[in-house]
Amino acid sequence: MAQNIFRAVLALAVVASAQAETHRFEPSVYHNTFSFAHAPVLTIKPGDRVITKTIDARGFDAQGREVGRRSNPQTGPFYIEGAEPGDVLVVRIEKIEPNRATGWSSSLVAPYTVDPASLRAQGQFEQTTETWNIDKARGTARIASETILPRGIEVPLRPMLGCVAVAPARKEAIATSTPGEFGGNMDYNGTVAGVTLMLPVSEPGALLFVGDGHAAQGDGEILGNAIETSMDVEFSVELIKSKSIGWPRMETEEYIMTLGSARPLLQALQHATTELKGWLMAEYGFDERGAGMLMGQALEYDVANVVDPHFTVVAKLPKRLLSPQ
Amino acid sequence: MAQNIFRAVLALAVVASAQAETHRFEPSVYHNTFSFAHAPVLTIKPGDRVITKTIDARGFDAQGREVGRRSNPQTGPFYIEGAEPGDVLVVRIEKIEPNRATGWSSSLVAPYTVDPASLRAQGQFEQTTETWNIDKARGTARIASETILPRGIEVPLRPMLGCVAVAPARKEAIATSTPGEFGGNMDYNGTVAGVTLMLPVSEPGALLFVGDGHAAQGDGEILGNAIETSMDVEFSVELIKSKSIGWPRMETEEYIMTLGSARPLLQALQHATTELKGWLMAEYGFDERGAGMLMGQALEYDVANVVDPHFTVVAKLPKRLLSPQ
Amino acid sequence: MAQNIFRAVLALAVVASAQAETHRFEPSVYHNTFSFAHAPVLTIKPGDRVITKTIDARGFDAQGREVGRRSNPQTGPFYIEGAEPGDVLVVRIEKIEPNRATGWSSSLVAPYTVDPASLRAQGQFEQTTETWNIDKARGTARIASETILPRGIEVPLRPMLGCVAVAPARKEAIATSTPGEFGGNMDYNGTVAGVTLMLPVSEPGALLFVGDGHAAQGDGEILGNAIETSMDVEFSVELIKSKSIGWPRMETEEYIMTLGSARPLLQALQHATTELKGWLMAEYGFDERGAGMLMGQALEYDVANVVDPHFTVVAKLPKRLLSPQ
Amino acid sequence: MAQNIFRAVLALAVVASAQAETHRFEPSVYHNTFSFAHAPVLTIKPGDRVITKTIDARGFDAQGREVGRRSNPQTGPFYIEGAEPGDVLVVRIEKIEPNRATGWSSSLVAPYTVDPASLRAQGQFEQTTETWNIDKARGTARIASETILPRGIEVPLRPMLGCVAVAPARKEAIATSTPGEFGGNMDYNGTVAGVTLMLPVSEPGALLFVGDGHAAQGDGEILGNAIETSMDVEFSVELIKSKSIGWPRMETEEYIMTLGSARPLLQALQHATTELKGWLMAEYGFDERGAGMLMGQALEYDVANVVDPHFTVVAKLPKRLLSPQ
Repeated sequence: MAQNIFRAVLALAVVASAQAETHRFEPSVYHNTFSFAHAPVLTIKPGDRVITKTIDARGFDAQGREVGRRSNPQTGPFYIEGAEPGDVLVVRIEKIEPNRATGWSSSLVAPYTVDPASLRAQGQFEQTTETWNIDKARGTARIASETILPRGIEVPLRPMLGCVAVAPARKEAIATSTPGEFGGNMDYNGTVAGVTLMLPVSEPGALLFVGDGHAAQGDGEILGNAIETSMDVEFSVELIKSKSIGWPRMETEEYIMTLGSARPLLQALQHATTELKGWLMAEYGFDERGAGMLMGQALEYDVANVVDPHFTVVAKLPKRLLSPQ
Repeated sequence: MAQNIFRAVLALAVVASAQAETHRFEPSVYHNTFSFAHAPVLTIKPGDRVITKTIDARGFDAQGREVGRRSNPQTGPFYIEGAEPGDVLVVRIEKIEPNRATGWSSSLVAPYTVDPASLRAQGQFEQTTETWNIDKARGTARIASETILPRGIEVPLRPMLGCVAVAPARKEAIATSTPGEFGGNMDYNGTVAGVTLMLPVSEPGALLFVGDGHAAQGDGEILGNAIETSMDVEFSVELIKSKSIGWPRMETEEYIMTLGSARPLLQALQHATTELKGWLMAEYGFDERGAGMLMGQALEYDVANVVDPHFTVVAKLPKRLLSPQ
Repeated sequence: MAQNIFRAVLALAVVASAQAETHRFEPSVYHNTFSFAHAPVLTIKPGDRVITKTIDARGFDAQGREVGRRSNPQTGPFYIEGAEPGDVLVVRIEKIEPNRATGWSSSLVAPYTVDPASLRAQGQFEQTTETWNIDKARGTARIASETILPRGIEVPLRPMLGCVAVAPARKEAIATSTPGEFGGNMDYNGTVAGVTLMLPVSEPGALLFVGDGHAAQGDGEILGNAIETSMDVEFSVELIKSKSIGWPRMETEEYIMTLGSARPLLQALQHATTELKGWLMAEYGFDERGAGMLMGQALEYDVANVVDPHFTVVAKLPKRLLSPQ
Repeated sequence: MAQNIFRAVLALAVVASAQAETHRFEPSVYHNTFSFAHAPVLTIKPGDRVITKTIDARGFDAQGREVGRRSNPQTGPFYIEGAEPGDVLVVRIEKIEPNRATGWSSSLVAPYTVDPASLRAQGQFEQTTETWNIDKARGTARIASETILPRGIEVPLRPMLGCVAVAPARKEAIATSTPGEFGGNMDYNGTVAGVTLMLPVSEPGALLFVGDGHAAQGDGEILGNAIETSMDVEFSVELIKSKSIGWPRMETEEYIMTLGSARPLLQALQHATTELKGWLMAEYGFDERGAGMLMGQALEYDVANVVDPHFTVVAKLPKRLLSPQ
């Protein structure tokens, strides 16, 4: 069924993908900025699928070797044939799966996530990096340390990518800690296998980066990181020519979504809301009032991250409400 | 099963409710401030149930008569015997059901919910108040106007109370447009039948107010109102003596939740996060690191409102993760 | 010359003050909310002058007796004859002078004024209340403690009132820690002798409150308090009938100013900027572009407080630029 | 006397400048990012002086020729011999003088500077670019258009540089619209001839950029630009080895200042306040309490800009209060 969604999106794609290929790409270099200036590691066509890997946020791979530098070293960039500024790159995430048995996270919540006055009290605790044991059979991750209370904290696995990005506009080179119009470190726990992400192209070839896998992450990513680990990743790409979007868009079976990133948090929400309203009006037949009234009663927000240089908020609408009769 | 949750909460309640009564209360006066200064309309005991009504945000009742003044005229206050400053009032919402066939909402999104630059373009549209037809059999509300595009916008009913409050601390009288530590106009679409809400008592008798029913409301309440209508409401109360909480707490079958209200939006989120962390540490055996690490990977946020004088954010954790082994 | 400004303002006043009186008022009761509900302590007429006293933010008077309760106990309210909702109350501050030899302040900066991450480090220091010796002859205040480094910290006296307020609209009762459209705890260090303050009247008689004197205060009031002390205060009042203003306005020899209060800080700035632009357009012959272009090149902002429930920002324009030729 | 300040700063400089040179540099290439990747246009030594030019924010030079691209094309970068990551670059601004007879600005205030609700009304006005006539003899700039009301709006000249920057850390390339730890587009109207600016070095040679001259600018730069014009600029540089600062610092005859940049506005203020407190504690003998208490009563804030991707706030303390006895 997931196929169907993607096909629906592809119906919009004007660039056909006659002979789609599957590429196996083993990365050997990783980048710490999203930038037009990095040489492409692989050229792919719309319709192609890529089977590759990402390393963890501090640069450790599936074998625990340090092969990249913190923070959030990226796999890529992939050059998409035919992509030009003013197009939209469509990335379907096919698979995200931890490829080692542990992840790590911080242990104290990050400064901006709690009342400032409560941070003075926190002064007595030292920040530590803690190990999580990943059990794919059970579908959970469990804190390894026996000294953290209560013992045995365990959370469900929900593997996701913190970063999916194209090269930013205006020849900027942005640290991979940061999200923006180009995607980037949005740290949205809804970026899981099965979703389709749309990103505005600013450079020839789009230059697609992926990285920063999390075995699980709560809303807000309030530790400043999540269960950071290396991943096996598969994705395929399509291209929509000459289409202007302001912020990343996402589509699942159930929802259309937009991802706004900024500080303050309200501004991220404003970007996401404005983009979603524009989407309804441009593609679903809503006027200003219709869009407002549906969103007013049916909009959902997710708080993706409140710890990165820009925070990310997701606005979403159930698809079943988009075709009223 | 919903019964069970409430019982679990009641296990904490030190005040027994030997002879619980059910009160039918027909309101005749409505208030536009949350304040210690309003005379109680009814005195009830912990354990008692109240069957009553609320009128809509502009003061119209089930028969469409204007019996209160905008905005958000409240039913109450109810005086809870034995409630004293420093206690926690437990309010279980038993029923919220629209008692007329229409509701209304604005048609344009409110200024703070979209990019400011986009508001200039909005200048050409006039704000209107639009009718929604409520169909309890179908479980939906539908826009009455035929001129709003697309025609036939319909959303699922999910009746909720915008306001549940006790009298604020410090002898403040707060307009019923505003949420705070005392509850108030939190406009959280999760405040539905079946939830249990906990509010910090600041005045003798607590002085409970309810009002501002919505037949449905999206996250953020981005029109500045939702599907505003009059409601049949039932609730029961319990009391937890000598317990200090900083912000409203809520409990359902699945979640424990905290509701922080403030501007900016991040501060509302900080209040909710801090309160939830404190709850984990005080009552569930978590230390600072354990609370941080569980929340980091499993926390969920809801954005209740981004239109009131204070915005409201809800932090929630699935109960099944709270008893690790 | 200061007389002249006041006269200019009075030219606008439609209520004459035929037989202006001077009242000596010795307060015996103090209030901790700004509210319509407090009985007036004195009725005065437009044109009248009042010679009175304020006590410090914790309730101590000129003799060091605790006669009020924290925080910010107010002198008043004064009932102004003829003042009605929709009028503007004009308050000219004639004198603010410390009437005892000491003031006090906190010693650590308040949580919201520095980077949250830096507060953890601050955890090792305990907040203390410190004494400042006020030397009116030298015109300075000096830290009494010999243990604070460096020894001998001394600042110039600049006596001001943290609070000048009328009763708020909508029957709200607002804690005296808080500023708003009604004035209140704006904590602006420019509220010194010689200024003329304009406040929007919401209740019959306006109900004027004054309090929270500071011997000196930096921008932002970043300790959460300033050099708190009791004061001899003199003021006179006038009334402008049927004039609508959105936020407090102030006038000195050199400037017209507006005082916006809100969180976040940007919203306080937006209120002040919007009010000043409206003032230019309504009373000084500016159109939208003229107002924008003058403000763009000549506007000045003061950050009054970043520690109260609402922050306060002041927007100001030099008067000499308001009559171009 | 201005000489003296600079000497005081130089006393800290460990790198001597034996044979200071004066360079006349005529720019022919301009950059739209602050980046390590741009080839230096000139190599200079600590102690050297540079006489050069900047073009206006849309790329027009003294002769009105379009020689660069919007926005904020920069002169530079200048490579400073001996500058290494971890040093501080000291830039003394010797001269900033408009070198043509006109500047331009927008005519409508930017979206984030006023209440969002007021922007709907603004919808009827069209944004225009307006000319200001610069009269160096009179020391003023005057609106050229006769249709803007009132006619003859005139403001005092106060030439400043919107941008002074070094290459950012982490190999980022940041659009010249943006300020940060590296300086950049701070748009502070106090960046005038006579000030000494300190910037943290992140790249070999520091890579100094200057640009975006304003003939005058109000606090906040609320039009989104100011009186934009081309400038004759002179500056000299010094180097302080192995000194860590978090944010740009500035020194004048009267003040020490720090410039924090971020969104939201409060965060910019927090950065500036934290940096100033750290400066007092590291170099002026203050402990945590002494720094807090002096700043609490004597701190001044300037709001530099509220229109750029990051807002900028300046925290300042009068030097005469820094050596108590």
